Amino acid sequence: MLVCRSRKHLHLHLLWKKKKCLEMAKSPETEHPVKAVGWASRDTSGVMSPFNFSRRATGERDVQFKVLYCGVCHSDLHMIKNEWGFTHYPIVPGHEIVGIVSEVGIKVEKVKVGDKVGVGCLVGSCRQCDQCSNDLENYCSKQILTYSMPYLDGTITYGGYSDLMVADEHFIIQWPENLPMDKGAPLLCAGITTYSPLRYFGLDKPGLNVGVVGLGGLGHVAVKFAKAFGTRVTVISTSLSKKKEALENLGADDFLVSRDDEQMNAAAGTLDGIIDTVSATHPLLPLLGLLKPHGRLIAVGAPEKPLELPVFPLLSGIGHEDNKQNGFNQNYKMLIC
Amino acid sequence: MLVCRSRKHLHLHLLWKKKKCLEMAKSPETEHPVKAVGWASRDTSGVMSPFNFSRRATGERDVQFKVLYCGVCHSDLHMIKNEWGFTHYPIVPGHEIVGIVSEVGIKVEKVKVGDKVGVGCLVGSCRQCDQCSNDLENYCSKQILTYSMPYLDGTITYGGYSDLMVADEHFIIQWPENLPMDKGAPLLCAGITTYSPLRYFGLDKPGLNVGVVGLGGLGHVAVKFAKAFGTRVTVISTSLSKKKEALENLGADDFLVSRDDEQMNAAAGTLDGIIDTVSATHPLLPLLGLLKPHGRLIAVGAPEKPLELPVFPLLSGIGHEDNKQNGFNQNYKMLIC
Repeated sequence: MLVCRSRKHLHLHLLWKKKKCLEMAKSPETEHPVKAVGWASRDTSGVMSPFNFSRRATGERDVQFKVLYCGVCHSDLHMIKNEWGFTHYPIVPGHEIVGIVSEVGIKVEKVKVGDKVGVGCLVGSCRQCDQCSNDLENYCSKQILTYSMPYLDGTITYGGYSDLMVADEHFIIQWPENLPMDKGAPLLCAGITTYSPLRYFGLDKPGLNVGVVGLGGLGHVAVKFAKAFGTRVTVISTSLSKKKEALENLGADDFLVSRDDEQMNAAAGTLDGIIDTVSATHPLLPLLGLLKPHGRLIAVGAPEKPLELPVFPLLSGIGHEDNKQNGFNQNYKMLIC
Repeated sequence: MLVCRSRKHLHLHLLWKKKKCLEMAKSPETEHPVKAVGWASRDTSGVMSPFNFSRRATGERDVQFKVLYCGVCHSDLHMIKNEWGFTHYPIVPGHEIVGIVSEVGIKVEKVKVGDKVGVGCLVGSCRQCDQCSNDLENYCSKQILTYSMPYLDGTITYGGYSDLMVADEHFIIQWPENLPMDKGAPLLCAGITTYSPLRYFGLDKPGLNVGVVGLGGLGHVAVKFAKAFGTRVTVISTSLSKKKEALENLGADDFLVSRDDEQMNAAAGTLDGIIDTVSATHPLLPLLGLLKPHGRLIAVGAPEKPLELPVFPLLSGIGHEDNKQNGFNQNYKMLIC
């Protein structure tokens, strides 16, 4: 058939072959020299199946490690179905990754082969901006997430639902010898997501009253950190079903049912800060009512739809159910004008 | 007719007279010894008419002063129509009150007869709580507003749309000699409402970039304070109509039209803080997009309905129009999990 082709056809055919070769060279399986296998979702169905891909050769400052454990975070579920709108398929999730170092680059100083290590949500950032200079790479505008984002070399990052991982040592965490690798893995995301705001916003002092809304993956870790910091911890939940777990298993001091107006009113104005871990749409006003003046409500859940922000009650203390009868309460935040 | 009455009827008649006398004694005109006249609204129509009432005798720590000027604040308009739901009628509004001291109590140390003085939004607070101890009486749960609230003696407070005022010296402001009393009066509410958050939240340092949303009563004062602090000021408005006033009359450095996506995107991630003075319902997302990481959006307007709080974009930087194409931007606030 080739003889039938014009020069133009031939030219197009060669272009097609070249493009095909480039695509082949850039396939996940062949774009890097080190073979890897993982579990990937190929589309918004979210169905996971085995996936052959590749990891880059260990660079000067890279740490390669054999993945032994990886936490399953709800973000992984959102991402495999592209519920947040920026998934690159195929996607290999997993950002609570723990394993044993198998190779290090010649300039790596932090760890050596055989060490236990972990990787969390990030594998890259600009390393130069104000945020990076202050150990706040999670605020860097050029941060690179552990999976489904373009890395510096243009290839897409793949996460910890895989047998092998590689990352710049800056984003490698040295794993404590006495910390179980399986149970500890979730600290790399759920842990830091609650530990960080408790520390960053000063809710880590004995004598403070801290509220934790929701007792799921984030909430139960928040309770344990807040207790370890010596604060008095109140768990706020929509029903009594988690009361025993909160008070007896996790050591919380108090338990409030958010739908019980009497309980909520009795606790009005008592908390220095609240970690709100709920991802579903929920009312903020009852939670704001629990805060002391200058108290902080810190949202770490990620509701897809906007929540209602009652500005007027924040300014005035008016609007809280309790205030319809009693006038102003302790949440009066600023002069009305 | 009296002879026809039974003892019971007579008893009821005497009770009625006693009640009437008590009511008379508690009428605004006679409840205190000092005669005063003001403008009052009697009902939700908001119509103002002359009103004879009375002021208390000057107590040991009280300052009585002749009212010369009083600002008209939008809160007054809300209150005279009971739009916030806690108005006591009749209401004499006015909380930007300036005048000349006519009498002082024997223990008053701050001012003397003949001094210029002012009173703002508050005439009372508990003076004992943490807030009061830290000069933050505006956060005290027992604060007493300058009008339409029960004072310590149980009588209702009346504001500065009147000829005479009396207040505890703690809530009296000494008026600077070189400050015009008429032009300066609004500083007692509009002034402190913008000055206070600029100072309290650290937006008072040269080199910072401060945004001011809305150029009304609060906004124009905010611009002048922010400029006086040496910050670079950007006014954000819904239309170009106030550009000249902002840049030429008030000295703002930049002007953004909030409905102009191109302008807003170009300014994304540039502001250290924003004072949002808008009372109407408005979208927060474009404003949040202007902030640097750790930037602060401070709402001093009082919208009656809740605003939409886009939690997910705050956490992730996703959802901002700009990000649909560019991925993450500088507003990424916290690890997704």
